[in-house]
Amino acid sequence: MLQGLAEQFRSVLRPGSVIDDPVRLRTYECDGLTVHRASPGLVVLPESAEEVAAVVRACVARGVPYVARGSGTGLSGGALPRTDGVLIVTSRMRRILEIDLDDQRAVVEPGVINLDVSKAVRPDGYHYAPDPSSQQICSIGGNVAENSGGAHCLKYGFTANHVLACEIVTPDGDIVTLDDGPGYDLLGAFVGAEGTLGIATKITVRLTRTPQAVQTLLAAFPSIETAGAAVSAIIGAGIVPAAIEMMDALAIEAAESAVACGYPAGAGAVLIVELDGPEAEVAHQFAQVEALCTEAFEQRVARDDADRALIWKGRKSAFAAVGRISPAYIVQDGVVPRTALPDVLAAIDRLSQESGVRVANVFHAGDGNLHPLVLFDDAEPGAEDRAETVSGAILDLCISSGGSITGEHGVGVDKAKYMPRMFTEADLDTMQLVRCAFDPPNLCNPGKVFPTPRLCGEIPRVRRGEPEGELF
Amino acid sequence: MLQGLAEQFRSVLRPGSVIDDPVRLRTYECDGLTVHRASPGLVVLPESAEEVAAVVRACVARGVPYVARGSGTGLSGGALPRTDGVLIVTSRMRRILEIDLDDQRAVVEPGVINLDVSKAVRPDGYHYAPDPSSQQICSIGGNVAENSGGAHCLKYGFTANHVLACEIVTPDGDIVTLDDGPGYDLLGAFVGAEGTLGIATKITVRLTRTPQAVQTLLAAFPSIETAGAAVSAIIGAGIVPAAIEMMDALAIEAAESAVACGYPAGAGAVLIVELDGPEAEVAHQFAQVEALCTEAFEQRVARDDADRALIWKGRKSAFAAVGRISPAYIVQDGVVPRTALPDVLAAIDRLSQESGVRVANVFHAGDGNLHPLVLFDDAEPGAEDRAETVSGAILDLCISSGGSITGEHGVGVDKAKYMPRMFTEADLDTMQLVRCAFDPPNLCNPGKVFPTPRLCGEIPRVRRGEPEGELF
Repeated sequence: MLQGLAEQFRSVLRPGSVIDDPVRLRTYECDGLTVHRASPGLVVLPESAEEVAAVVRACVARGVPYVARGSGTGLSGGALPRTDGVLIVTSRMRRILEIDLDDQRAVVEPGVINLDVSKAVRPDGYHYAPDPSSQQICSIGGNVAENSGGAHCLKYGFTANHVLACEIVTPDGDIVTLDDGPGYDLLGAFVGAEGTLGIATKITVRLTRTPQAVQTLLAAFPSIETAGAAVSAIIGAGIVPAAIEMMDALAIEAAESAVACGYPAGAGAVLIVELDGPEAEVAHQFAQVEALCTEAFEQRVARDDADRALIWKGRKSAFAAVGRISPAYIVQDGVVPRTALPDVLAAIDRLSQESGVRVANVFHAGDGNLHPLVLFDDAEPGAEDRAETVSGAILDLCISSGGSITGEHGVGVDKAKYMPRMFTEADLDTMQLVRCAFDPPNLCNPGKVFPTPRLCGEIPRVRRGEPEGELF
Repeated sequence: MLQGLAEQFRSVLRPGSVIDDPVRLRTYECDGLTVHRASPGLVVLPESAEEVAAVVRACVARGVPYVARGSGTGLSGGALPRTDGVLIVTSRMRRILEIDLDDQRAVVEPGVINLDVSKAVRPDGYHYAPDPSSQQICSIGGNVAENSGGAHCLKYGFTANHVLACEIVTPDGDIVTLDDGPGYDLLGAFVGAEGTLGIATKITVRLTRTPQAVQTLLAAFPSIETAGAAVSAIIGAGIVPAAIEMMDALAIEAAESAVACGYPAGAGAVLIVELDGPEAEVAHQFAQVEALCTEAFEQRVARDDADRALIWKGRKSAFAAVGRISPAYIVQDGVVPRTALPDVLAAIDRLSQESGVRVANVFHAGDGNLHPLVLFDDAEPGAEDRAETVSGAILDLCISSGGSITGEHGVGVDKAKYMPRMFTEADLDTMQLVRCAFDPPNLCNPGKVFPTPRLCGEIPRVRRGEPEGELF
């Protein structure tokens, strides 16, 4: 089956666009979440929307599943390939097609690297706001699939807030344009659908004006609790920083050993607070922020861009750095209401103490998005299971505090099993109505997001007899 | 059929919740767009989500169409009833269920009046940001259906940006919750679906902190062009005002005669520019704005809230006021890229001159959302047709400049016919896939938004043989 497809693709696409050599296929066996692996049956590297559409149609005609992949930096296995399917890789669709500064937008192909958008418009005083930690390598198409966030999304919003239109190839192989104009806002449903509703082939993104002034504070606190209190005080004062990031002692230790970021010694937690905007506002609010960090034992203000970059280096390298202090780890991604932060952090600490599993906390404190790093030694029998248990228990804490199982990494294959903890069956079935409308044969990135993909037509419609249905 | 439903509803709902008296039904024959009228077959006034769900299920069981209605202030006929159907009016669902200032959100029923949300939280320093001109009477449920905007949406975003979750009754009669958590962002698709994907029964809205300072400028210009140049200069300077509204001479004349707002005499156009935010920022930027209005022959700064209210009174009463200078008029709602404003305004002026049809322009200049008021005398034979022709030609101008047929009033029944001018058949069919997924029998607000509602199952899937499909 796949051999036939490979020949079909080779006869039409440019030479070198079809990969079926088993060794080369292994390059694509996972995304950033390496616990899930599967070599794709076939890889294609299309160069246009028409080619993507043709590949999708050919797959649909033969009943072959397909998965799209950008740079493969995702952290939920959203781009995990199918051994019986085709992996459509967008790395040859890297053109910035249009930059329109007057209307503050750019049109890009899905393989364009996130940071390259900002680089292209920075000389003109603009940037692309969503800034995942992987922004040097992740692609805009992948950002769209996962509705990616980043440290500065507290103030500026997620990818969904910066995508103005998408040309997509639907799971039928149609090329259609979604925008936020009249009619249904399918753009909103598409962004963050984790590649299950089609493949973006052209993306119109909003360009954001580079702020006049930026000020960055690194504040060191004796404990997580005192740092958390400062976060509450800052947000409570009505200040919306561009970013507030927190790292606990273990995360600081890891970052320090990896990149020598020079954070104050002996801190139980550090906060990075960045303000941006008009100079007058930043100066005024920055003074407020410094005053609100009452329990910090040391505060450092970035003197210049190089100094600011060093402060951020510790934070941005934290995930990778944890590899220095632990042979293996799980990156968790949960959300809690900001007001529940202190309780949830204390509960995570108890979980860690009771289980003997170390947890390093790195998080977007301003929007309650936690990234606990659950550490373990994969050479030690049972250690991974214990870490998985703690990791799952952290998600339960997030859910029971009114939060969510994912803030920005997506559900993918990794968290599909947790979806029923957040949603009722009716909620999930309503989402699957849409999946089935777009993709009746369930070939477009199947097995992601939903714990039990419904055969289309199998979704119960009116649920008579359930409690809310008793009225008539 | 409807008689049977009326009896069924009466036997379960509270007395007075079912209306079938023809005279009383006429009260509901139109929304704010009075050119389309139809008395509903039956009106029900449910008081809970369970009652709404039960009504919907009963309708579905009998194949009877139904339409939801809030306060009936919509301007596209989105709540136009069906003579053969049930109108579900949410005016008895007016409870503010929860206010959570710590997490900056409130949970309200759909019939709650927009302004009442702000009133409830104003003493605590918060407000609900989207502010349609009808905010004193329009309902949050209607705002959700239409994704309503308002003068301050330039800075703060539309309803979709302020709705965090919705409990809805699906067209099947299920009660489900949509939020922006993991899985598909159906909340985004639901907000602005004009009541075709179900009925909101509980809405979680974001509360916005009341800004520390507000400054309002009324600037009078000799012409539309000079006022437009000031708008470009302000936006071009990177300032995002809370609002920039423009009115031309005819709109000023109307407002003046209706509410004596005291705008400077002899102005070809006035701009209202409002800035809000931290005091330091507002003061700094307000000085910039004043300097950028170089061609204004008079600038007035609101001295206090009463003065500010008077400035706004002229703008907010403009639509109604036009009734003083013309027996009848059409309120148009189109969008153009901000950069195309001068050209489009000049073209509207030419259209008006050539046709002899007067056009008063009132608009949200900052986001290019035009509200041309096309005036006519309904006693004069052919006048309405001529006005309709000009009104349609204005939409064509908006579309050909890269804009949209509606900015905030929705498509409803009124603009369905224009949808094919903006979207390809594949685009529209993709939207209808979603409508059909939610509502296969097409009973939920049928006849709105889509020019040719497809029978579900009739939507062509893979469009082989079309140009983009030639590759394989």
